[in-house]
Amino acid sequence: MFETYLTVVGRVITDVTQRTTSTGDKVCGFRMVSTERRYDRDEQQWRDGDKLFVNVTCWRRLGENVAVSVFKGDPVVVTGRLHLNEYQVNGESRTTLELEAKAIGPNLSACTAMLQRPARDGTDGERLAPSGVAAA
Amino acid sequence: MFETYLTVVGRVITDVTQRTTSTGDKVCGFRMVSTERRYDRDEQQWRDGDKLFVNVTCWRRLGENVAVSVFKGDPVVVTGRLHLNEYQVNGESRTTLELEAKAIGPNLSACTAMLQRPARDGTDGERLAPSGVAAA
Amino acid sequence: MFETYLTVVGRVITDVTQRTTSTGDKVCGFRMVSTERRYDRDEQQWRDGDKLFVNVTCWRRLGENVAVSVFKGDPVVVTGRLHLNEYQVNGESRTTLELEAKAIGPNLSACTAMLQRPARDGTDGERLAPSGVAAA
Amino acid sequence: MFETYLTVVGRVITDVTQRTTSTGDKVCGFRMVSTERRYDRDEQQWRDGDKLFVNVTCWRRLGENVAVSVFKGDPVVVTGRLHLNEYQVNGESRTTLELEAKAIGPNLSACTAMLQRPARDGTDGERLAPSGVAAA
Repeated sequence: MFETYLTVVGRVITDVTQRTTSTGDKVCGFRMVSTERRYDRDEQQWRDGDKLFVNVTCWRRLGENVAVSVFKGDPVVVTGRLHLNEYQVNGESRTTLELEAKAIGPNLSACTAMLQRPARDGTDGERLAPSGVAAA
Repeated sequence: MFETYLTVVGRVITDVTQRTTSTGDKVCGFRMVSTERRYDRDEQQWRDGDKLFVNVTCWRRLGENVAVSVFKGDPVVVTGRLHLNEYQVNGESRTTLELEAKAIGPNLSACTAMLQRPARDGTDGERLAPSGVAAA
Repeated sequence: MFETYLTVVGRVITDVTQRTTSTGDKVCGFRMVSTERRYDRDEQQWRDGDKLFVNVTCWRRLGENVAVSVFKGDPVVVTGRLHLNEYQVNGESRTTLELEAKAIGPNLSACTAMLQRPARDGTDGERLAPSGVAAA
Repeated sequence: MFETYLTVVGRVITDVTQRTTSTGDKVCGFRMVSTERRYDRDEQQWRDGDKLFVNVTCWRRLGENVAVSVFKGDPVVVTGRLHLNEYQVNGESRTTLELEAKAIGPNLSACTAMLQRPARDGTDGERLAPSGVAAA
């Protein structure tokens, strides 16, 4: 109840790391940034606006698939539960913004993607590669 | 002002279609469904809950990349601006729910993806395929 | 899992109705519209854009408080779970957009509000009325 | 483009402050917390979960109405644009989470409210007080 949900569109800015918890669950994580783009009427061009940095955590199957699909620099869209993580550094309280992902996808605004899905017969699904990438 | 934003996680349920508007803009569209999953304590299993059907529209570069990356049946996460489209059938008013996408990605909860990004030298970017797909 | 959450800012366009379910739960409902406002550069003025009509349902205590606080025409902000309701009319399928509210508030962009909260001693809380309303 | 929108449901935990910017705009601010509630099956009771602290800023008319309607301790629902504010303390970088509100309302899950709207004839609107407050 009263969970807070957030969707962030941005870039992965660290390596994607994986670990296994003491209970045996696999978890995968990375840090991302979302940068606003604002049109400057005086200069007649787009400029960077405010930024939002978030640590993303993805569990189990989502984490396994992210670990083989997403890399530093990739454009992503992430939706999930937002909360703060508090910790101490030299007796001082610090916080990081944490997003526990419900779904993650490479953002097709800035790339194409070839999907691979598990087939019903247990073998990996196959699909031909996209024929090209739209220029930026 | 007062635009309404929505993020939907679900499946593409139609073919992805493309057209060019009279002003020369390329637009791409598909229909998707999001299905809730609820745990039935009496039956001790997950069951389908409420559904949400939405028409998704994606413009220009996002549309071009979606058209070569996303196909009927694919799992996706879509975020964008929500509104109603009203039209008449035999004098009666009908509405459809429309989502103008800001970002779309294949949902890595249910697939892996190999990204391809435009390279800075003008050639297409390359990346090795993912080594495997986590079983469902 | 995979529930869809939405926040809508708009106006109540019907009376607020209350009923008691067969299980004894009180539920309250109304219909609202959110209207986009877009700046027309040629005309140099704001104009109405797309609209979104939603049926809002609020359960138990939220519903009881809404029933005595919110009336037709009031500006509101509503956040909750979005889904479709399907029904038949003369053998044809129709749908309405339903928002099961998690929280509702009068939108202070367009009104002031005097809050009244239950006091800890069981009596109603009291607060002085706001001194004025900012002109539109 | 790529702005990040968030809706938070929680409590005001500071006084609401007002100031006028150098350009003459009035701005109002407060800090709030959203606390998750999770059901502990072993203990068979609800417990507090993760928390999210956010600084809320409201401009112009919204700010003026908030300043006379919302006070420390009040339950609120806030929707707006999320970003980070970076600043330096003794040469070290710190960040706060900032929400520029698009709409704010007292959360009727935990209070009732008597609305007052500007009348079309320029006088303040009037409405009778709610008849009671649903007990918690």
